[in-house]
Amino acid sequence: MPELSNALLETLLEQVRPLTARGAVASYIPALAEVPAHALGIAIVTSDGQLFQAGDAQTRFSVQSISKVLSLSVALTRYSDDEIWQRVGKEPSGQPFNSLVQLELEHGKPRNPFINAGALVVCDMLETRLTAPRQRMLEFIRQLSGTADINYDRHVARSEYEHSARNAAIAWLMKSFGNFHNDVSKVMQTYFHYCALSMNCVELARSFVYLANQGKAVDGTTILTPRQARQINALMITSGMYDGAGEFAWRVGMPAKSGVGGGIIAVIPNKMSIAVWSPGLDAIGNSLAGTAVLELLSEQLGSSVL
Amino acid sequence: MPELSNALLETLLEQVRPLTARGAVASYIPALAEVPAHALGIAIVTSDGQLFQAGDAQTRFSVQSISKVLSLSVALTRYSDDEIWQRVGKEPSGQPFNSLVQLELEHGKPRNPFINAGALVVCDMLETRLTAPRQRMLEFIRQLSGTADINYDRHVARSEYEHSARNAAIAWLMKSFGNFHNDVSKVMQTYFHYCALSMNCVELARSFVYLANQGKAVDGTTILTPRQARQINALMITSGMYDGAGEFAWRVGMPAKSGVGGGIIAVIPNKMSIAVWSPGLDAIGNSLAGTAVLELLSEQLGSSVL
Amino acid sequence: MPELSNALLETLLEQVRPLTARGAVASYIPALAEVPAHALGIAIVTSDGQLFQAGDAQTRFSVQSISKVLSLSVALTRYSDDEIWQRVGKEPSGQPFNSLVQLELEHGKPRNPFINAGALVVCDMLETRLTAPRQRMLEFIRQLSGTADINYDRHVARSEYEHSARNAAIAWLMKSFGNFHNDVSKVMQTYFHYCALSMNCVELARSFVYLANQGKAVDGTTILTPRQARQINALMITSGMYDGAGEFAWRVGMPAKSGVGGGIIAVIPNKMSIAVWSPGLDAIGNSLAGTAVLELLSEQLGSSVL
Amino acid sequence: MPELSNALLETLLEQVRPLTARGAVASYIPALAEVPAHALGIAIVTSDGQLFQAGDAQTRFSVQSISKVLSLSVALTRYSDDEIWQRVGKEPSGQPFNSLVQLELEHGKPRNPFINAGALVVCDMLETRLTAPRQRMLEFIRQLSGTADINYDRHVARSEYEHSARNAAIAWLMKSFGNFHNDVSKVMQTYFHYCALSMNCVELARSFVYLANQGKAVDGTTILTPRQARQINALMITSGMYDGAGEFAWRVGMPAKSGVGGGIIAVIPNKMSIAVWSPGLDAIGNSLAGTAVLELLSEQLGSSVL
Repeated sequence: MPELSNALLETLLEQVRPLTARGAVASYIPALAEVPAHALGIAIVTSDGQLFQAGDAQTRFSVQSISKVLSLSVALTRYSDDEIWQRVGKEPSGQPFNSLVQLELEHGKPRNPFINAGALVVCDMLETRLTAPRQRMLEFIRQLSGTADINYDRHVARSEYEHSARNAAIAWLMKSFGNFHNDVSKVMQTYFHYCALSMNCVELARSFVYLANQGKAVDGTTILTPRQARQINALMITSGMYDGAGEFAWRVGMPAKSGVGGGIIAVIPNKMSIAVWSPGLDAIGNSLAGTAVLELLSEQLGSSVL
Repeated sequence: MPELSNALLETLLEQVRPLTARGAVASYIPALAEVPAHALGIAIVTSDGQLFQAGDAQTRFSVQSISKVLSLSVALTRYSDDEIWQRVGKEPSGQPFNSLVQLELEHGKPRNPFINAGALVVCDMLETRLTAPRQRMLEFIRQLSGTADINYDRHVARSEYEHSARNAAIAWLMKSFGNFHNDVSKVMQTYFHYCALSMNCVELARSFVYLANQGKAVDGTTILTPRQARQINALMITSGMYDGAGEFAWRVGMPAKSGVGGGIIAVIPNKMSIAVWSPGLDAIGNSLAGTAVLELLSEQLGSSVL
Repeated sequence: MPELSNALLETLLEQVRPLTARGAVASYIPALAEVPAHALGIAIVTSDGQLFQAGDAQTRFSVQSISKVLSLSVALTRYSDDEIWQRVGKEPSGQPFNSLVQLELEHGKPRNPFINAGALVVCDMLETRLTAPRQRMLEFIRQLSGTADINYDRHVARSEYEHSARNAAIAWLMKSFGNFHNDVSKVMQTYFHYCALSMNCVELARSFVYLANQGKAVDGTTILTPRQARQINALMITSGMYDGAGEFAWRVGMPAKSGVGGGIIAVIPNKMSIAVWSPGLDAIGNSLAGTAVLELLSEQLGSSVL
Repeated sequence: MPELSNALLETLLEQVRPLTARGAVASYIPALAEVPAHALGIAIVTSDGQLFQAGDAQTRFSVQSISKVLSLSVALTRYSDDEIWQRVGKEPSGQPFNSLVQLELEHGKPRNPFINAGALVVCDMLETRLTAPRQRMLEFIRQLSGTADINYDRHVARSEYEHSARNAAIAWLMKSFGNFHNDVSKVMQTYFHYCALSMNCVELARSFVYLANQGKAVDGTTILTPRQARQINALMITSGMYDGAGEFAWRVGMPAKSGVGGGIIAVIPNKMSIAVWSPGLDAIGNSLAGTAVLELLSEQLGSSVL
């Protein structure tokens, strides 16, 4: 089994680079469609703090749904388990990430916090208990990443908001079932800002090391308990990759969360966090080349958790 | 972290024993309703062959859906990946295990091999390529477990067949989409026999060690490739516990497969296979006390894969 | 066959009066829950202009969904057939009136103009082409009924708006499919005002005579073409009674539209329009005693269209 | 308004004849695909017994789902209303005629007797109470039509049975809910024979005059009560044209039932029954040219019931 090194990562990227031509860049909002389609990057931070990187690892992109893990993490520090899990479930949805069908049949309780409905409920919770939820998230992610200048891409956030009809429908449907407490428009603004966090692979890998490290951030701060970190990993392995979690576990075997910006954050518990980025998406909405990089890495390191 | 021992297992069982009074024994067929409701057993076989056990570990019960892992394993040895996965998917269903709604919307392709529809397709494949699929399964499980007298409980198999209208509907719906090739009645007979395998925890733990051991059985025989073993573990962690896979991963963090007979088989890759049994089921259909035993075990051994 | 007379109508009301104790008054908004539960009234206007009435025929109530026929009628005068029917269908839904499931599966095109989604699309159309849609509706209904003081019950309209989360979800879902063009909040305000029209049975029977009279109002004005009147009757007989249109046709055999305020307007083409009112609703949302009055009337006059 | 005559019917046929080139002949079973695609015929029998006809009115074809009205009529003579309507509903389905989705959600109770599920339940009832349900139907239809040599097309019946997987799934699903009592295969054999009745327009128009004549057949025999005839007309107007009942009522305004053989039977209560035939179907499964003939006829006779 080869040892981790920047050179190894370079080699992996070369193997999958042809795939960057095959995915489709998210285009439902103009701001996302503008990214360089062939970008490809990876960064790894081990639980003992080493950093490895290759390719476009220092180019920032829109983290999109990866932020759903962050907002859930913040919620876990402000709400009891009972308070959270009576409002959102823990099961895979077996449906597209933005469907309302299941949400109506299940009376406004989203299946899990990583589909849009679930993340909106989490943001609704944060709106209730945080005085400045957008500012708080910036502080949180700056602390996690050790990078002071991480910011929202307001252009992306505004663009998302202007194309938010589906999410508004989801929020209003939950409100009709009593599972949404704050102003829909205000919570969506927060939600879209979270999605519009602009970060690069190095920053992401560093930020998410707490999930590989029993809840402890890169700087040693306790973010979550070991059990909570494990639980988020559980949610990621069953529901982190939209309606492609099963296929991803089959191929890669790691807890992970993707975003339509082309980023994926993956975790090897007690070992490392990995961030990959390539904007071309597969039919499900996951980075095509990004998934392939992680699959190769898993094979070469023997690092599947399964 | 305590070391594995029969005494440790005894202690775990004592802690969860009160839960045996709370679950509901499966009663959709008379034959299953006859089991002793408060039975509770566990057996562990490590990848180096040690056996630990406690409670009713040597009482046989109906393995039911646990057999879906066995039939898939046999299919993997007779069919190419492409042949299998064009007929059955790899994603969690987000639905009850016997629903037809999704199956119709997705044109007769079952979501995964662990819901009834998926297992029926797998049995249909075995019917095509095996000359005596029932006899073959007996040989397979006898080899895996090293026990010559494992048999089908024909009383259970017949009882299942007499209450099989829902499964017949599923099979015929797949046939209408061209995804079922053999005689429905014949394949269901095989399917119900597999479900009616009668085994105890020791036999199950021993049998499933191939999933914890890179595909190698207790006797060293290669059953599957390391990659195939990993892939089955992936399917189990995302779809092995009916519509409770997310909750189970959250609490226990191991690939696992349950049956309505009250058994659960769990795998800690490269370490051990675990079989628990307690007939009382939760609302989803998973053993209530059995899940609790695995949760305690996971905590005490720190053996979650997540 | 008895002749129409006030006395005959009195007799019918007496026969069904016991049913007024059995229905449930709509209570999803406080303003509706305040009506006298045992009210019961009927009015008939024949195509040659005679008026018959009995019971609480002159007490005003909230017309609610009956207004959906009015808004569609106005739309038919401002839009071509193609413009309307590419945005809303003509088929019964087979679903509750406010479900989003079918709406999502059918890409935001409502099944018909008498479910909430369909009526919201119609209101959206009116918003586009009318300068003052609320004022226009008042003028329309005052003309139809020949009553100058018909008004919106602003208390009801406000109360509806405050409980409009489900309708907002519906409107936003249609917007996400491009089938809703104006501001959701503004259109909903119009929609709820239409629902909050306050009218009595006499005014309703007089207003809807155009559907029994080849499109001509009580004062002889042409409201719609004969074909359009017939088409609205067709929509009413297949989709006018929520998810109870089949049962209603079976029992009563007339085109009709109900509202959760307890009103029902029914049409015997070329003969008469009938308005009944009793606030207690059946499980589907149709007036329990009102339906029974119409059934008796149909039997006694032999006036089913079927 | 023109008077009915063979010449008038000829004229109507000429107007719609170009449409015979546009529909698609049913091809799910080979036997149906063999019909002459451009056939076009019409026959009318008035309630006072006059016969009018034009085109291919004396060529026999497969009545298919038109037989669902016949089997329901027989059931109404052998079962009480309560017995029938607790097992099958009266509402339009809002779904394709052979979907299982709604059937599962509604616990095995079909929406109405004119979708496949509902007709299968009706056949299951007949199987229980008739000693020779196939022979009984032949006697019934021979009496209704006054034609002794009407028979099943056994080639079609066999062909249907060989392509019956979807219907088997439906029947088994109902059986799983306790709403199907006899042997699935046996009932399907009866069902497919009914569908395979071979009749021409003249025979059909004559047979169905009981629905236009208060329940009385052409020979004066009482088949149903006036109320029962009206009720069947109600079911036809809301659910008789697959998922196109709303559009059909909109265009034609008559109770009607279609079959995928290209036949449509329509009823003008107290006036006449009409049979049209043209094998080319629209996307919903109704005869394209047949519907157009009825629409023209409705306009020219002013005979819409609405």
